[in-house]
Amino acid sequence: MSVNRPFKLLFLSGPNLQLLGRREPSLYGHETLADLYQRATERARLRGAELDARQSNSEGTLVDWIGGAIDTFDGLLINPGAYTHTSIAIHDAIAAVGVPTIEVHLSNVHARESFRRHSVVAPACLGSIIGLRGNGYVLAVDAMVDHLGGAPKT
Amino acid sequence: MSVNRPFKLLFLSGPNLQLLGRREPSLYGHETLADLYQRATERARLRGAELDARQSNSEGTLVDWIGGAIDTFDGLLINPGAYTHTSIAIHDAIAAVGVPTIEVHLSNVHARESFRRHSVVAPACLGSIIGLRGNGYVLAVDAMVDHLGGAPKT
Amino acid sequence: MSVNRPFKLLFLSGPNLQLLGRREPSLYGHETLADLYQRATERARLRGAELDARQSNSEGTLVDWIGGAIDTFDGLLINPGAYTHTSIAIHDAIAAVGVPTIEVHLSNVHARESFRRHSVVAPACLGSIIGLRGNGYVLAVDAMVDHLGGAPKT
Amino acid sequence: MSVNRPFKLLFLSGPNLQLLGRREPSLYGHETLADLYQRATERARLRGAELDARQSNSEGTLVDWIGGAIDTFDGLLINPGAYTHTSIAIHDAIAAVGVPTIEVHLSNVHARESFRRHSVVAPACLGSIIGLRGNGYVLAVDAMVDHLGGAPKT
Amino acid sequence: MSVNRPFKLLFLSGPNLQLLGRREPSLYGHETLADLYQRATERARLRGAELDARQSNSEGTLVDWIGGAIDTFDGLLINPGAYTHTSIAIHDAIAAVGVPTIEVHLSNVHARESFRRHSVVAPACLGSIIGLRGNGYVLAVDAMVDHLGGAPKT
Amino acid sequence: MSVNRPFKLLFLSGPNLQLLGRREPSLYGHETLADLYQRATERARLRGAELDARQSNSEGTLVDWIGGAIDTFDGLLINPGAYTHTSIAIHDAIAAVGVPTIEVHLSNVHARESFRRHSVVAPACLGSIIGLRGNGYVLAVDAMVDHLGGAPKT
Amino acid sequence: MSVNRPFKLLFLSGPNLQLLGRREPSLYGHETLADLYQRATERARLRGAELDARQSNSEGTLVDWIGGAIDTFDGLLINPGAYTHTSIAIHDAIAAVGVPTIEVHLSNVHARESFRRHSVVAPACLGSIIGLRGNGYVLAVDAMVDHLGGAPKT
Amino acid sequence: MSVNRPFKLLFLSGPNLQLLGRREPSLYGHETLADLYQRATERARLRGAELDARQSNSEGTLVDWIGGAIDTFDGLLINPGAYTHTSIAIHDAIAAVGVPTIEVHLSNVHARESFRRHSVVAPACLGSIIGLRGNGYVLAVDAMVDHLGGAPKT
Amino acid sequence: MSVNRPFKLLFLSGPNLQLLGRREPSLYGHETLADLYQRATERARLRGAELDARQSNSEGTLVDWIGGAIDTFDGLLINPGAYTHTSIAIHDAIAAVGVPTIEVHLSNVHARESFRRHSVVAPACLGSIIGLRGNGYVLAVDAMVDHLGGAPKT
Amino acid sequence: MSVNRPFKLLFLSGPNLQLLGRREPSLYGHETLADLYQRATERARLRGAELDARQSNSEGTLVDWIGGAIDTFDGLLINPGAYTHTSIAIHDAIAAVGVPTIEVHLSNVHARESFRRHSVVAPACLGSIIGLRGNGYVLAVDAMVDHLGGAPKT
Amino acid sequence: MSVNRPFKLLFLSGPNLQLLGRREPSLYGHETLADLYQRATERARLRGAELDARQSNSEGTLVDWIGGAIDTFDGLLINPGAYTHTSIAIHDAIAAVGVPTIEVHLSNVHARESFRRHSVVAPACLGSIIGLRGNGYVLAVDAMVDHLGGAPKT
Amino acid sequence: MSVNRPFKLLFLSGPNLQLLGRREPSLYGHETLADLYQRATERARLRGAELDARQSNSEGTLVDWIGGAIDTFDGLLINPGAYTHTSIAIHDAIAAVGVPTIEVHLSNVHARESFRRHSVVAPACLGSIIGLRGNGYVLAVDAMVDHLGGAPKT
Repeated sequence: MSVNRPFKLLFLSGPNLQLLGRREPSLYGHETLADLYQRATERARLRGAELDARQSNSEGTLVDWIGGAIDTFDGLLINPGAYTHTSIAIHDAIAAVGVPTIEVHLSNVHARESFRRHSVVAPACLGSIIGLRGNGYVLAVDAMVDHLGGAPKT
Repeated sequence: MSVNRPFKLLFLSGPNLQLLGRREPSLYGHETLADLYQRATERARLRGAELDARQSNSEGTLVDWIGGAIDTFDGLLINPGAYTHTSIAIHDAIAAVGVPTIEVHLSNVHARESFRRHSVVAPACLGSIIGLRGNGYVLAVDAMVDHLGGAPKT
Repeated sequence: MSVNRPFKLLFLSGPNLQLLGRREPSLYGHETLADLYQRATERARLRGAELDARQSNSEGTLVDWIGGAIDTFDGLLINPGAYTHTSIAIHDAIAAVGVPTIEVHLSNVHARESFRRHSVVAPACLGSIIGLRGNGYVLAVDAMVDHLGGAPKT
Repeated sequence: MSVNRPFKLLFLSGPNLQLLGRREPSLYGHETLADLYQRATERARLRGAELDARQSNSEGTLVDWIGGAIDTFDGLLINPGAYTHTSIAIHDAIAAVGVPTIEVHLSNVHARESFRRHSVVAPACLGSIIGLRGNGYVLAVDAMVDHLGGAPKT
Repeated sequence: MSVNRPFKLLFLSGPNLQLLGRREPSLYGHETLADLYQRATERARLRGAELDARQSNSEGTLVDWIGGAIDTFDGLLINPGAYTHTSIAIHDAIAAVGVPTIEVHLSNVHARESFRRHSVVAPACLGSIIGLRGNGYVLAVDAMVDHLGGAPKT
Repeated sequence: MSVNRPFKLLFLSGPNLQLLGRREPSLYGHETLADLYQRATERARLRGAELDARQSNSEGTLVDWIGGAIDTFDGLLINPGAYTHTSIAIHDAIAAVGVPTIEVHLSNVHARESFRRHSVVAPACLGSIIGLRGNGYVLAVDAMVDHLGGAPKT
Repeated sequence: MSVNRPFKLLFLSGPNLQLLGRREPSLYGHETLADLYQRATERARLRGAELDARQSNSEGTLVDWIGGAIDTFDGLLINPGAYTHTSIAIHDAIAAVGVPTIEVHLSNVHARESFRRHSVVAPACLGSIIGLRGNGYVLAVDAMVDHLGGAPKT
Repeated sequence: MSVNRPFKLLFLSGPNLQLLGRREPSLYGHETLADLYQRATERARLRGAELDARQSNSEGTLVDWIGGAIDTFDGLLINPGAYTHTSIAIHDAIAAVGVPTIEVHLSNVHARESFRRHSVVAPACLGSIIGLRGNGYVLAVDAMVDHLGGAPKT
Repeated sequence: MSVNRPFKLLFLSGPNLQLLGRREPSLYGHETLADLYQRATERARLRGAELDARQSNSEGTLVDWIGGAIDTFDGLLINPGAYTHTSIAIHDAIAAVGVPTIEVHLSNVHARESFRRHSVVAPACLGSIIGLRGNGYVLAVDAMVDHLGGAPKT
Repeated sequence: MSVNRPFKLLFLSGPNLQLLGRREPSLYGHETLADLYQRATERARLRGAELDARQSNSEGTLVDWIGGAIDTFDGLLINPGAYTHTSIAIHDAIAAVGVPTIEVHLSNVHARESFRRHSVVAPACLGSIIGLRGNGYVLAVDAMVDHLGGAPKT
Repeated sequence: MSVNRPFKLLFLSGPNLQLLGRREPSLYGHETLADLYQRATERARLRGAELDARQSNSEGTLVDWIGGAIDTFDGLLINPGAYTHTSIAIHDAIAAVGVPTIEVHLSNVHARESFRRHSVVAPACLGSIIGLRGNGYVLAVDAMVDHLGGAPKT
Repeated sequence: MSVNRPFKLLFLSGPNLQLLGRREPSLYGHETLADLYQRATERARLRGAELDARQSNSEGTLVDWIGGAIDTFDGLLINPGAYTHTSIAIHDAIAAVGVPTIEVHLSNVHARESFRRHSVVAPACLGSIIGLRGNGYVLAVDAMVDHLGGAPKT
């Protein structure tokens, strides 16, 4: 981790996050996913990192992307959306690739329906940032770069 | 909702419904999904509506289609099949797009295995029509047109 | 089931439905039970059936009426109200008399308190029509006549 | 209990037992409730006891009858039917009047749906006779007379 | 509620309370229900209110009476007895009529069997008075008149 | 089952029943197991049957005995004692040999600790006789002979 | 309990009740704890009793105070606030000192989050007064003096 | 199944199994999925069968493939990976196509996290082979050919 | 494990398996336990191993045999029958002796009663072979010899 | 208990304890059961008591031994091993014989699998000594002699 | 919030956090609480805020401090330690004072014992930052200042 | 641990134990806490140890004292009273300081209310001594000195 290249970060957003900003702003805010990814990308650049930002509604595609991160990315940021609460496959993918991962949720999942209080994915992650709206996407980038703490791997 | 065009309805069927009519007729009847969709389409036309009928085995594709309905369809009819009992993603998609939705099940899910008695999707819908075999697809069209109760949105 | 007489249908409504239209219209609509029964009766006549419509707050009376239907009615429609969630006696009565039965709920019971998500009665029925407000009473008549699908029994 | 008069026994049957013999003979046998009560009454007479045999579909009526037994009957026999599994009111009535009580079930409730395996009523009774079909009604009379210390059966 | 007439209160007692004073005085005290209702009626008169006091063992009758209170009574006092723990119908009736209601229990239900610790009825009430024996009936009258804003007790 | 020989019945008692009569008479009465078996044997002879009565504290021995009953006995009576609540092996043995079986309990297991309310063994039996003290052993013989209802098998 | 001195009552309020009147008046009303204690003190004086009123956010301090009541107070009134639902220590303290105790809650805990429906403390008390707002503090004083029913202990 | 052609077997592996051999060898061994499929294919050929081996991270694709097996394959072998524990859709697909199926797991799922102890898929299969590492893939081929009544292994 | 002697395997079958072939062939097949053990013994000889095959209905005897295997056997094969679901003692015995163990079940326990879906024994084993009828006994021998993979220990 | 003879103590050890010292010393220590029993016997002699020390893997044998203690032993010490968590029969045997009993566990069962945290046996005992390795066997002897009121340890 | 003064933040740490850095560094890192608070204080100053940092092992003291924040602090940061999982009192205090609050955990509570996966406190907070070691304390300051709309970090 | 000074032991007692001897002697005996501590102190001196004995009703104070033991005490003895069943904070404190700890309970918690059967604290301790009344305090000192087994640490 001592070479002179920017960290490469992969940021994944799961189901229904393509609708962000169009619906339920009281829960999720007025920004679109593109807005959030732009802010996160800028923060990444400021911190000397590159961000690859993607979204999919398909659990299988998310698992494909995580599996593909194994030799490519230094850190993984993921908002698994509704799959948070059920996807053992995403949990296993994160555990298998061994890339450090931070889970992000825009809304405070603990203040909503009880089935949203349990994250199947969290035990495979470093930690979680929850309920801080769009700012959570930016803080997650900060937290990951802090965690990687130096020059990126080569 | 006061313009002179037919209602546009989207009818989605989930996993394994492509096998309808070939297997387990005691539970699901002898009609194929194509048969059911033809009857539902005819009833829609009779009621002055257009029906777009699709099937997918993929949760992600179903979520894609629901998300895409946001500016296109007046009503959504969905038989989520096995995803009924686990898919928070489909629930969230329906809640997010805000298109009125009716859930349909061909068999009486309450008279089968206990894990089929709970619908994760139902709370995001107007209501449900359960156990009325293929006729349920036709009644769902009736119920949705009744609910929309006037000229389609423009 | 091949004789020339109208189908005889029994429509039962359970506890507190006598208050319909007077309270909580956001949940149950503005129509009274008499209004709903009139609409259902008209639809029955249109479909060549006769409707006997009753209401009781007493579980025992509902069980009496179902038991009495054994040689008298071709189909049973029932909105068991609050007994839906606890009455094994109503379940057993329906199972015992063997008259085809459809369960109806005005509100979407799946979007309310969790104790309303479980129907003890449903496994003894053909199926259920839920959440479609007063229109559900009319659709249930349609669904039952469709199910009986021919001349009434004699 | 040392006076020269026959024991007075009250035998109550709960919801849907008025249909006995007409339906589901594989579970409940071909005899009607009248048949069973006649056999039980004869056995009672043989043992020097009088039997008052009643049936109601109403939980409230059953509670009325049990409450009224307080100064009138020496023993209570009850088949609470579907109320077995839910009626705290019947449990409390039996506990309150203090008349010795035996619970009877015609079918083996433990070999059916799981919700039939729990009796709310049983803890207030001396004991239970389960699954012995119509013969259980006769054995219950024997057991109660034996308990009361009556004349031996011949 | 500013007219010059006494408050009209309805006091309902549920199953087995007709046996009060005859059995289990360690739990319920030596007074009969008539005694309690007399004390409550006197307190009501003292506070400028009229009390209509009834008892039934039937859940349906209790639901009838609550439904009938809708235009007749200013306040409802109810000891639902054993139905406390199971009757969604009584809960719904109280919620539907919108008459302010206080739940009363003579014994401390929390110090008995665990199934008595949960009240299905309580969420529809203003509050509950539990375990204060017969005095609870009198306090409930006080509490309701206080709630309605009546004349102070002297 | 039409030949002229007495029915052969096997009566098994499980763990700790060898202590009967010596301890906890308030629960189990003052009679010893030998006393109960003598009464049951006499009743069997009166009814034209032979009784083979055994006791073991070992689950394996009870399973051996039930397995060995397959070609030897017409009916099985069993008080599985504490194994009632846990022994799938005894359940399976009864189900495997196909000899009609009645379960007997001396005390009312439903009025004791909650773990005694569930019988693992009951679903494999015809029925149960519970809480009638030593008299239950005699009634079980009666019930089995009634069930066999004719000449013994040869 | 026959000497001529006023009853001595201890009234304890638990965590966050020092904030009363400043926040969430829809749940707890506009009065401060000082207001409530003043009303309760006046009622006590009217009934010939003395009230010692305290508040603490610390479970340990509440347990200290209850333990200290053993030779000093005739009755204990307690609103355990959030400790209601978890404090076995407060339950045990009340049970240990043997001073008669009434539990008070200002809001209807049964109409809020499900974790507020269970009181760990209630089984050690005489009874509970729930949901009657500030008036509950006054009624509790009445109920306790009624319970003590005569001259204070010496 | 009496024609002269080799059995056609379909072997499906689910999410994250494309990573096999690269990660967590203590749990899954050092072989890649390609290695395992090669060994299984060789065993199939030895037993006179043809093996079609596929992998997907998508639940929908797995359901597609199973549905497509209906007229094409004689036997199905499946390692559903993380979907084992949640996919009712895969269960239903196997049940619907009626092709005999054996479930395989490389690791001993019973010795890991508790959520891995329950297989939703197993009830629709003939049986399961669990915990035998890569050898399980070979044994599953043997077991399926044995089941189909194929040529003995040499 | 490098000496020239055959592997020594111990194969244990638990309660009721002595009845195999005589009862419930739809679940367990027509072969007797002797038949299965003969086939397994032949397969063992073919693979250069010796098989010691035993059966007991007693949990204690099975625990004795497992404990005695500690210096005698290279591998343990066990069908714990009904003790599978409850025997912590068998689990602990396998864990204590450290001899590699494979669990075998003839029927698909996952497709039967829900209490058969949980194996207490499995976590102490290498793995399980389930639902493959008598062939499972032979496959288990194969799997164990494969696992031991070389010359036996001396 | 005032006669001039030494106390007679029975010390029972359950399944797999015959393997002690040979396996899993990190959990159970290096001493064999014989070592532990020798230490316990010496301590007993020192305290003026005689110790009869036995081990069995059979639940039935342990129940036999406890039952046989009824007129023979002054105190019972038992390490029920794996039967601790399931054996109602051992619980009932201890309760039936009425000999004071102390339960001993070598390892801290509360720090292992969750199913080891519940003792079925404990409620029938005076108390328990847990997690103190071999020393627990000696302390149990001390505790029992202290309980019986024996000579003080020196 | 538009006045020209620095934001005032209160940072509370709960039980056992005074031991930080001395024990279990694999879980909590090598820094002491003083180290973390120094870093958080510096970040606060950088962002134009003042930080008041405290620690207590007492739930009551934490509740006192939160209650006292009502007119004094603009934001609250809290690591409730072990009280996270049980303290309704802390939850209620946060809800009552209405000061925006962020919950912080140093370790990933989701990857530890299951009882640490549930936060009673979280629903009253804006959100949570979990598992990011000491850096979480700094990020929480950032997140709160961002939330309050403060000066951007440089 | 090889220097010549006595072991230093800390003995903590939790809530309500200051009332010992005054109340509920059937459960806790007639000795006061001072009596027990005197006996424990004497036994400690006899064994060459010093005992520091304290009591508090406050969870926070107990956590303070445990945290403070980190460099001061060789062993910790604790009767956490009612906090046994809920205090994760005490569990964590014991785990954090790493001082060997034995849990003591005077009464047999397994023979009381079910909520007393679970100890949150036990997994962090060496072991537990339960139900041996005051003698348990003395035995705990013995057990700890035995465990420390040599010269105290310096």
